[in-house]
Amino acid sequence: MSLLDDLQWRYAAKAYDPTRKVSNEDIGRIVEAARLAPTSSGLQPFRIVLIEDSELRDRMIPGSLNPDCMRECSHVLVFAAWDRYTVERIDRVYDRMTDERGLPRGRFGSYTDQLKTVYTNQPPEENFSHAARQTYIALGMALVQAAELRIDATPAEGFDNAVIDEVLNLREQGLRSVSLMYIGYSDKERDWLAPMKKVRVPKEEFIIEYP
Amino acid sequence: MSLLDDLQWRYAAKAYDPTRKVSNEDIGRIVEAARLAPTSSGLQPFRIVLIEDSELRDRMIPGSLNPDCMRECSHVLVFAAWDRYTVERIDRVYDRMTDERGLPRGRFGSYTDQLKTVYTNQPPEENFSHAARQTYIALGMALVQAAELRIDATPAEGFDNAVIDEVLNLREQGLRSVSLMYIGYSDKERDWLAPMKKVRVPKEEFIIEYP
Repeated sequence: MSLLDDLQWRYAAKAYDPTRKVSNEDIGRIVEAARLAPTSSGLQPFRIVLIEDSELRDRMIPGSLNPDCMRECSHVLVFAAWDRYTVERIDRVYDRMTDERGLPRGRFGSYTDQLKTVYTNQPPEENFSHAARQTYIALGMALVQAAELRIDATPAEGFDNAVIDEVLNLREQGLRSVSLMYIGYSDKERDWLAPMKKVRVPKEEFIIEYP
Repeated sequence: MSLLDDLQWRYAAKAYDPTRKVSNEDIGRIVEAARLAPTSSGLQPFRIVLIEDSELRDRMIPGSLNPDCMRECSHVLVFAAWDRYTVERIDRVYDRMTDERGLPRGRFGSYTDQLKTVYTNQPPEENFSHAARQTYIALGMALVQAAELRIDATPAEGFDNAVIDEVLNLREQGLRSVSLMYIGYSDKERDWLAPMKKVRVPKEEFIIEYP
């Protein structure tokens, strides 16, 4: 199967079968796709929180727009972006990069100096906004990896970030929640979206060709 | 091949072979992956500008950080997000959705009323910020579709948006540039990144497991 088949297959599941669990191996692949996602300057300015525990989910429900998904899906991922870029965080990434490539530390020094200047002169909110964008690439990879495995998933925004951040102690870790992803097997009887046609903007309107 | 193989294969190409063109069929698949990407509330609040013309590229170079890629790759995509959400834009998407699904118009009226209230009460800059995030999911899909086809690509941010917006008349179309994607076949002799190991944050640091 190809990526386009997987994209046609998937949709944002609206109800999950609470009796079916996704295997650890499959969850591992979904998270691995997110880990391999490209990010701006390779900084990977986010982490993924992986949650199975039902008590923790109950505590997240007051902040969630999809309480049934939160309760009934197999696993929940929380995509949490760095609250800001710092010199230490940038050095850590590039020290790892040079070490793993057998290059001298500082090999990318002039590039990282530029990054540090740009980011540390921005307000933290602008740093976070940039980091948050990167999480969407990884969210996409995780969604399409689930689809390749024919596992259902639901991406979610619009929840109460303060509740999720507090339940998961994200702020203390220098992180802020951006999106949720519910993973599991859809309950087709209760999932109103399951039988509906996928609708997208037509190609001729989506693509602007020049000249 | 699987998504994880494709993600391992790809990297952000740094130099392109100017003599090799990507076929229209392959370009069509790359853009199609972006068109099928999920977005918040299914609004698809962005468009893709597809550019092959060299004169137009020359005019974008002053705004670009990768002049060689801009000049030498096969095709350039510009991901351009809606400058704001409007009642008309939201209605257009949901009217198409109900029409194509054979449902009465207004079937999702209470949902779209909520969307309209939220978005039209936000400053346009906040609307754009939300729309811009969605483009990253589609950028990821386009990158991974190129990889599946073993076509090289380079995602790019940090360019001068004002230049790109003006050259492409994006503002007049209610759009603002967010990212670029260069597509083509890498010139391995000049591409310093091609032989280097892919480096990512280790799993144990990337995944936060609760409890």
